[in-house]
Amino acid sequence: MNPIYLDYNATTPIDPLVVDEMLPYLREGFGNPSSNHPYGQKARQAVDLARARLTSLLTCDPAEIVFTGGGTEANNQALIGTALANREKGKHIISTAIEHPAVLNPLRWLEGQGFTVTLLPVDDTGFVDPEAVRRAITSDTILISVMHANNEMGTIQPLAEIGAIAREHGVLFHTDAAQSVGKVSTRVDELRVDLLTVAGHKFYAPKGIGALYVRRGVKIDPYLHGAGHEGGRRAGTENVPAIVALGKAAELAAERLAGDGERVLALRERFHARLRELVDGVVLNGHPTDRLPNTLNVSFKGVVGADLLARTPEIAASTGSACHDGSGELSGVLKAMGTSREQGFGSVRFSLGRLTTAEEIERAAEVIAVQVKELRAIRGGITHNHVETGLSALASCAG
Amino acid sequence: MNPIYLDYNATTPIDPLVVDEMLPYLREGFGNPSSNHPYGQKARQAVDLARARLTSLLTCDPAEIVFTGGGTEANNQALIGTALANREKGKHIISTAIEHPAVLNPLRWLEGQGFTVTLLPVDDTGFVDPEAVRRAITSDTILISVMHANNEMGTIQPLAEIGAIAREHGVLFHTDAAQSVGKVSTRVDELRVDLLTVAGHKFYAPKGIGALYVRRGVKIDPYLHGAGHEGGRRAGTENVPAIVALGKAAELAAERLAGDGERVLALRERFHARLRELVDGVVLNGHPTDRLPNTLNVSFKGVVGADLLARTPEIAASTGSACHDGSGELSGVLKAMGTSREQGFGSVRFSLGRLTTAEEIERAAEVIAVQVKELRAIRGGITHNHVETGLSALASCAG
Repeated sequence: MNPIYLDYNATTPIDPLVVDEMLPYLREGFGNPSSNHPYGQKARQAVDLARARLTSLLTCDPAEIVFTGGGTEANNQALIGTALANREKGKHIISTAIEHPAVLNPLRWLEGQGFTVTLLPVDDTGFVDPEAVRRAITSDTILISVMHANNEMGTIQPLAEIGAIAREHGVLFHTDAAQSVGKVSTRVDELRVDLLTVAGHKFYAPKGIGALYVRRGVKIDPYLHGAGHEGGRRAGTENVPAIVALGKAAELAAERLAGDGERVLALRERFHARLRELVDGVVLNGHPTDRLPNTLNVSFKGVVGADLLARTPEIAASTGSACHDGSGELSGVLKAMGTSREQGFGSVRFSLGRLTTAEEIERAAEVIAVQVKELRAIRGGITHNHVETGLSALASCAG
Repeated sequence: MNPIYLDYNATTPIDPLVVDEMLPYLREGFGNPSSNHPYGQKARQAVDLARARLTSLLTCDPAEIVFTGGGTEANNQALIGTALANREKGKHIISTAIEHPAVLNPLRWLEGQGFTVTLLPVDDTGFVDPEAVRRAITSDTILISVMHANNEMGTIQPLAEIGAIAREHGVLFHTDAAQSVGKVSTRVDELRVDLLTVAGHKFYAPKGIGALYVRRGVKIDPYLHGAGHEGGRRAGTENVPAIVALGKAAELAAERLAGDGERVLALRERFHARLRELVDGVVLNGHPTDRLPNTLNVSFKGVVGADLLARTPEIAASTGSACHDGSGELSGVLKAMGTSREQGFGSVRFSLGRLTTAEEIERAAEVIAVQVKELRAIRGGITHNHVETGLSALASCAG
């Protein structure tokens, strides 16, 4: 039997309706949209339809969508593409300490090119203070990048407020919405963003496809240089089946946003409640309310998260720490939130999704409760030595 | 009835065996390879197998393969990634006038960063003289990039000779093998290259996936910055289904290289012979022998290629001119070969592939011959005015 999948923030299954929509383009609909014959025209029409579907979800114009090879590429283009295109205006960029590496590392690269980056702190719920953004703006600031929802905690940032401040100061505003698209509303007018990153595999489309929303009039360089695809803004033959899939996933997301969100939120709240009923010492990480409806990041007092996951093979989830590099360090997000080492190494991220059932939630809570109790019984609480034991088992965590 | 597809250099259908191989990863095998649970482990194993399959085709080590979002991204990383990583050694790059825009435009970007680029000429068959490469090398040269086979003409470059010269001078050598992988041998030891670009959708894998071979020890920066995927050389969640597909396509290519090549070569030669039997004034563009076995680029004297294709909806092929931008200019390749305007606008690229049949070839030759004769009868030969007419119909051509 497959483990219960509670790792939707790492990646989602592709919705079967999305697979069905893309299959014809993996088979007879293989044309290159740049070709002038019917094979190409059919592919072009499919790309156009997908673009229209994505604009409905984001409420923007087709010309404001650039399809990319994924969220990471979209972030690279958003940051490096706007920084290089606007360097005559200034060389200062504001972001936050809890961004995904796909934002932090392009910013680091830009620092090597002479740009200056201010990373704002967050409070202990992972929340960015809009007034801190305002205070960080200088006459040299050209770009602000604040993620919509954090991948580890689910904390949702006050984008509209930050966007209003950015506009007041004539500064471009980008958000990495990889984790929020399809989970909460990502209307670009409401979020007041100029650029927004979409990652397909976080909302039931395949891996290897993403998009960047670029508000009309924003100066941005292409990041992949080559032939003139995507209005000259992204070179490379269009990935037609994946674009079709992204469009379908966007359509489904738009249709189901409210319903899915409520259903998943109820399951998550039930899960949280059951965990607290079954064991004590369950500490929530992240914002208590302004949080993605699917995400529950908790620490179990006296327990190392990696140890817990190692003992619960019935469940597929991820530790909140040691993300991406397998090192024995707390994740940058936990550090930025000022989380203690004990609480941090205890953290486990459960992320629910479209296929999660009430039965799975009940079973998962029971399995976890048993193992939390066993670990506590064996160890009699966390000590330095136990943290070390835990580190050896620390999983890399995805997304 | 679908038109006869003779545009395999623009894009190939995905081999049904490749589709079958990738389907499980579009369905239950959706895990993120960075996840430590069984969903992730299964995906990681699939990526490892695909990497091994690709190394068999290229004869290299797994650690020398970086999966990318396509050929364009691989070229961007090969050129910009090595140039920036080796800029302390020098800032001069040598390439050719007939490269794909996915090479020329990254080079143009590098010129904006203070690099100097020498674009070597080609002869009237599209052939680069290795001795011209040698003469262009200076003490400041860090990189040579010469495509393996030209997308428009199919002309195959003498990479082994150029590679030997590059090694003598301690200069890195990259080739864009987007058009040659799966069509001719692309063993990196024989080609003597340090970097080689693979594009999935040119050899029966899907669009949106590619790879870069990077010889062990070559200094190269990541191009997509983010989390530490692909050994820290390419950030972004691995596109598992497409990587699996690329691996399977590589396996098929390795098995079928000789057989497919001979079969397609025989069909192409038959096609060329039939065209010459049925109409006169058929002029071959590109190298008469050192050419991809599937590619036939010909001009029909007195006929505009775009007009011919517009009159033969039974056939899906592409004009050899006005590639990528729909402008009324001869393609850079035709210009670099010194092709006359008349011959250049007359050119049509037919590219055959795995599914091409003898019946299709016979039918295509007949249809074309009829329309060539009709166009010649209507127009009585090319005039300036007819070129204008042709231009209005010029198709953009892909790949």
